[in-house]
Amino acid sequence: MSTIKDVAQLAGVSVATVSRMINQNGYVSEGAQKRIAEAMTQLGYEPLNRRRLADLSMPTIALILPDITNPFFSELARAVEDVCQQRGYTAFFCNSDNQDYKEKSYLEALRKRRIDGIIYASNYLTQDELDKLEREKIPVVVLDRTSDEQKCTLIRCNNYAGAQMAVKHLLDIGCRKIAHIYGPQEIVTAQERLNGYEDFVKSFSWYTPSLMAPGHFQLDGGMQAVETLLLRHPDIDGIFAGNDFMAIGALKALHRRGIRVPENIAVCGFDGIKLAEIIEPELTTIAQPIYKMGEQAARTIIQQVESAEARSQSEVIEINVSLITRDSTRRD
Amino acid sequence: MSTIKDVAQLAGVSVATVSRMINQNGYVSEGAQKRIAEAMTQLGYEPLNRRRLADLSMPTIALILPDITNPFFSELARAVEDVCQQRGYTAFFCNSDNQDYKEKSYLEALRKRRIDGIIYASNYLTQDELDKLEREKIPVVVLDRTSDEQKCTLIRCNNYAGAQMAVKHLLDIGCRKIAHIYGPQEIVTAQERLNGYEDFVKSFSWYTPSLMAPGHFQLDGGMQAVETLLLRHPDIDGIFAGNDFMAIGALKALHRRGIRVPENIAVCGFDGIKLAEIIEPELTTIAQPIYKMGEQAARTIIQQVESAEARSQSEVIEINVSLITRDSTRRD
Repeated sequence: MSTIKDVAQLAGVSVATVSRMINQNGYVSEGAQKRIAEAMTQLGYEPLNRRRLADLSMPTIALILPDITNPFFSELARAVEDVCQQRGYTAFFCNSDNQDYKEKSYLEALRKRRIDGIIYASNYLTQDELDKLEREKIPVVVLDRTSDEQKCTLIRCNNYAGAQMAVKHLLDIGCRKIAHIYGPQEIVTAQERLNGYEDFVKSFSWYTPSLMAPGHFQLDGGMQAVETLLLRHPDIDGIFAGNDFMAIGALKALHRRGIRVPENIAVCGFDGIKLAEIIEPELTTIAQPIYKMGEQAARTIIQQVESAEARSQSEVIEINVSLITRDSTRRD
Repeated sequence: MSTIKDVAQLAGVSVATVSRMINQNGYVSEGAQKRIAEAMTQLGYEPLNRRRLADLSMPTIALILPDITNPFFSELARAVEDVCQQRGYTAFFCNSDNQDYKEKSYLEALRKRRIDGIIYASNYLTQDELDKLEREKIPVVVLDRTSDEQKCTLIRCNNYAGAQMAVKHLLDIGCRKIAHIYGPQEIVTAQERLNGYEDFVKSFSWYTPSLMAPGHFQLDGGMQAVETLLLRHPDIDGIFAGNDFMAIGALKALHRRGIRVPENIAVCGFDGIKLAEIIEPELTTIAQPIYKMGEQAARTIIQQVESAEARSQSEVIEINVSLITRDSTRRD
């Protein structure tokens, strides 16, 4: 790696002269400027400070995701990427695996590499981290987190209402004992969906907390949850899964056991991933407008990066979910 | 954003002194060093040069993917992320969407941000780009590309042999007219799989080039290709799809038309993504050891980043594929 000293030597000027040129904070003769630029090119030397990056118009934003293998997040990433592309931005993705320490390490790596803005679709962003980012004027847009007083733009769906919509739909088609497969309870979306389910069903005589089983927001988790639920309650006739990924796992487990969907057990997911339309039976789901959410997040962060202040705004953008009825709950 | 000048002012030293300290190329008194460090912290100033990043032990590698929504690549990304995590590296992912200009723009953004190494699982890496990366001592590991004389480590599967394995299997179970859904022909993996198919079947009397239809490596593409193929050849009894994603789309289209798999048409994919086991019927596939490939790529790049020379090596690591038989070709 070349240093500023190598550049100075090759250009036949002092290090201070090179430094003045890089930082645009003093006089450098035209001849020297030319020689320094040539030396930099020849040596592949590129001092990285934000002003220079901006000059070079290579602004870059990062999207921190909890699980890159869940299609919800890869579809979201795709939308972010598309908007960035249109606007001349590049987008990096980071997979935090829902791990506290990984998220911290990504944030540090991104700060050190002078990222221009961050879209945060994961779970452990603390006020302390947000403050650090604000000090360095790196705006942050957060997807799907609590709406406490953290100073940033929040984009979120109404998970609670969506969960109740799912349960109501299952009751409407005749279900009389509905189970819930829930995601990790340290994740607010999983929490809100569970609460929506529980608040809706707790007044029913058939309800008992053992109708809820964890599925970890994963395919395998959805399969295992079905085994657990059938062992506890062989008479369930409806399942609301906290995301589509678990619902698809649940369909698989039910199929393996020869249980017919929707005749014996109807299944409803949450998210609206493309895959929900591809599998058999096609999955009824509470759809979030995934692509739109990604677009909105990307547009918002770019607007903040380009604003004079380059800082986060405290703002909550709430997005509506909707029920999409498909074969997994279609009983005629 | 603070400049080196602000740091110098606050620390009460000259810009040249700050520069000497940053670039470790000259004497700076201990007192000045302390004041400069304090000024940098206070101002949030961080000059980014590779040496300093290395000191801070935040090495970062990037994985450039062609399509983040294809589970093959998200599973690969997951493996890369896991190895990086174990080794104290952070990993950024970039989605190139198989677009030439996007890949170039990512490479530029990564170079400017002094990434320590790049795993390249996309398609348009030129010798010119490789040369640039080599000049800047950024090692590159390439997944699934041609093995011409490009100077980098290549990790690849035997796509040609895998395709022939698929066709042979379909013939073995009794198929007498086998179609092929192929991926984008500018992508070498898609090319090699098509060639494997064609070379194997061209001597058969039933063979005609119209048995090949494009599916663009996408779910929707697989669905459309089935429509095209059935219109041209209603009598096909086997389909080999160039990746699992298209094969899953093909299963969907066949199901919609009431065509039974495998009784009427048997289907074989290529990749071995997890989803292939989840859908109904479960998909027979030519499996690449996806996770292992990701691990191998990550280990190799980290080894090169940490080697004294920090440069790419010309090396080809070939990985074997294997046939996994499931219900989509199980005829009893």
